Amino acid sequence: MSCPPTSFIGWVGHDKSSAKGNLRWESFVPKTWTEEDVDIAIECCGVCGSDIHTLRSGWAPADYPVIVGHEIVGRAVRVGRKAAGGIKVGDRVGVGAQSSACLTAECEDCSNGDEHHCENEGNCNTYDMRYPDGSKATGGYAEHTRVPSHFAFKIPEAISSIEAAPMLCAGITVYAPLVENNAGPGIRVGIVGVGGLGHFGLLWAKALGCTSITAISRTTAKKDDCLKMGATAFIATDEEEDWSTKYAKTVDLIVCTVSSHKMPLNDYLKLLRLRGTFIMVGVPEDSLPAIDLGTLTDRRAKIGGSTVGSRQQIREMLDLAVEKGVHPWINMYPMKDANKALIEFEEGKPRYRFVLKN
Amino acid sequence: MSCPPTSFIGWVGHDKSSAKGNLRWESFVPKTWTEEDVDIAIECCGVCGSDIHTLRSGWAPADYPVIVGHEIVGRAVRVGRKAAGGIKVGDRVGVGAQSSACLTAECEDCSNGDEHHCENEGNCNTYDMRYPDGSKATGGYAEHTRVPSHFAFKIPEAISSIEAAPMLCAGITVYAPLVENNAGPGIRVGIVGVGGLGHFGLLWAKALGCTSITAISRTTAKKDDCLKMGATAFIATDEEEDWSTKYAKTVDLIVCTVSSHKMPLNDYLKLLRLRGTFIMVGVPEDSLPAIDLGTLTDRRAKIGGSTVGSRQQIREMLDLAVEKGVHPWINMYPMKDANKALIEFEEGKPRYRFVLKN
Repeated sequence: MSCPPTSFIGWVGHDKSSAKGNLRWESFVPKTWTEEDVDIAIECCGVCGSDIHTLRSGWAPADYPVIVGHEIVGRAVRVGRKAAGGIKVGDRVGVGAQSSACLTAECEDCSNGDEHHCENEGNCNTYDMRYPDGSKATGGYAEHTRVPSHFAFKIPEAISSIEAAPMLCAGITVYAPLVENNAGPGIRVGIVGVGGLGHFGLLWAKALGCTSITAISRTTAKKDDCLKMGATAFIATDEEEDWSTKYAKTVDLIVCTVSSHKMPLNDYLKLLRLRGTFIMVGVPEDSLPAIDLGTLTDRRAKIGGSTVGSRQQIREMLDLAVEKGVHPWINMYPMKDANKALIEFEEGKPRYRFVLKN
Repeated sequence: MSCPPTSFIGWVGHDKSSAKGNLRWESFVPKTWTEEDVDIAIECCGVCGSDIHTLRSGWAPADYPVIVGHEIVGRAVRVGRKAAGGIKVGDRVGVGAQSSACLTAECEDCSNGDEHHCENEGNCNTYDMRYPDGSKATGGYAEHTRVPSHFAFKIPEAISSIEAAPMLCAGITVYAPLVENNAGPGIRVGIVGVGGLGHFGLLWAKALGCTSITAISRTTAKKDDCLKMGATAFIATDEEEDWSTKYAKTVDLIVCTVSSHKMPLNDYLKLLRLRGTFIMVGVPEDSLPAIDLGTLTDRRAKIGGSTVGSRQQIREMLDLAVEKGVHPWINMYPMKDANKALIEFEEGKPRYRFVLKN
């Protein structure tokens, strides 16, 4: 076999302006090859809000140059001798938001299948982070990527690459808090925000057989779409007066996919039934509104945070998608139009997830 | 049987100053008798922070005159013909923070054994609230009280009245969130604040067999006491630098018995392990500090509120106290010294619960 390549080609962000559609198509250096890695010829990559947060250094200063994208599906074109999971050249595999963890026996998180919470050396996101050897993790807005095989997931035959890609971040981000909080028959679910994440929330809640599914958005603009996705009720918070009273105590579990200092958090909490749970996904750039403890106490309710999901949950999610025929709503862009996609993403145009295709 | 009395004698609060030791020993009118009620000759009544919050109109304007006290144990001296629970004259019974609920089949809370969350007409606290007929609920700083029998609990023989009394509010307030969040073998518990509630937290956590029990206080003043109560670790937040880093991720479940805008809430949250839970008990007069969502998200952690507990939980708590020989730490005052007790309570003198004895 030939030597592993030391250069890939993709969309490179050099500064904050890159978030505004100023990525440059260039060659870049992938992580240093090890025999645990797999090189993937990328078929497609979803566009995630994290890509833009990172490119504009919204959460923290980015380690430019950055190649973003962590909803990656493609074909394994090179597989290390020590690769895990039985991946073979030619297999279709996917990569989500994490590409590495310490995987040591001493790490309680890795030992418990919670690699996504490993904080030890060796833990690495799919982009804008470095491996222990100092080489950069590079994402999926590219022709190829290279990742440790432990975090490359075989994609079931029945799911198209285009549909599988956004499941690997947006999908798992809402799937995990749903299943961890018992979403299913008997449970009334609410989904706040109907974007890439929220639309997955509705699709998964339906696939999981939840008793009712309430979509919560600011206006009725997306109401018809939500009903098609599986919502059984819809609240337009900017249009319906007294909505938090009218729908008080109607849901057991809310997954909130939006975050802003201005959002009516305490009104959302009023929607919870006794012992209800409110889970924030994703991380805001600003702080949350102050929480009204009385609303939590009156309901013995809880508010929590969640980020991505475990490898096991990713596999279960893909299986559920096959079993229930879950089809995300996707707008496809050729990879060459990545900059256009970023601009239109920021304009709120996804219905409901953008995917770049090579 | 003679007619039910229309007047009892006890400590009456007439205005905000009553909280500062200005209760007056006077006759007062109890609730209007019904055949579902039980009259209790009070043996003793615990002193709860709620008594003082209420007397000083701290949460909301009190409906003076007020007779506080909701940790009541005494003998049933009159039992209505329709009384529930098999209570007979002479039985030793206790009353906690709630004295009534709607108890209708249409009420989901009452039907599910969650009477403590009933919000319908008929729901009534043990004091500073009115029954549907307009008569006032009166508490335990008195010679007698009258309550609907549904909320009078038979006290097991093996528990003294003095020890049973504070279990009925302070005890259940921490017992309920512990058992609802799986406190027991394998679970590492933290208790913030070592007052009346917190000391019960340590006692229950030990009785429940928790794997470790961390007492969290500002100084080491109560450390020795905490170790005797069952604590296996102690954090003095005002004295130990970097405590939130040093003890990061060491507990699964925190029950927080203090609440103040100044408390280091986000440092407490850092003590949580993956999927940890932080439960606030009681209701503060001011707001909470802003919550750092990142700390929750990194741990898939949750913060919630809890108030008192269900009737079933009260019975289970009393049974646990018998089974494990749980003995709260009590300072006893004669009922005549109620004003002195209020003053010394506010001075922080309880070690760890005051009980007034007739």
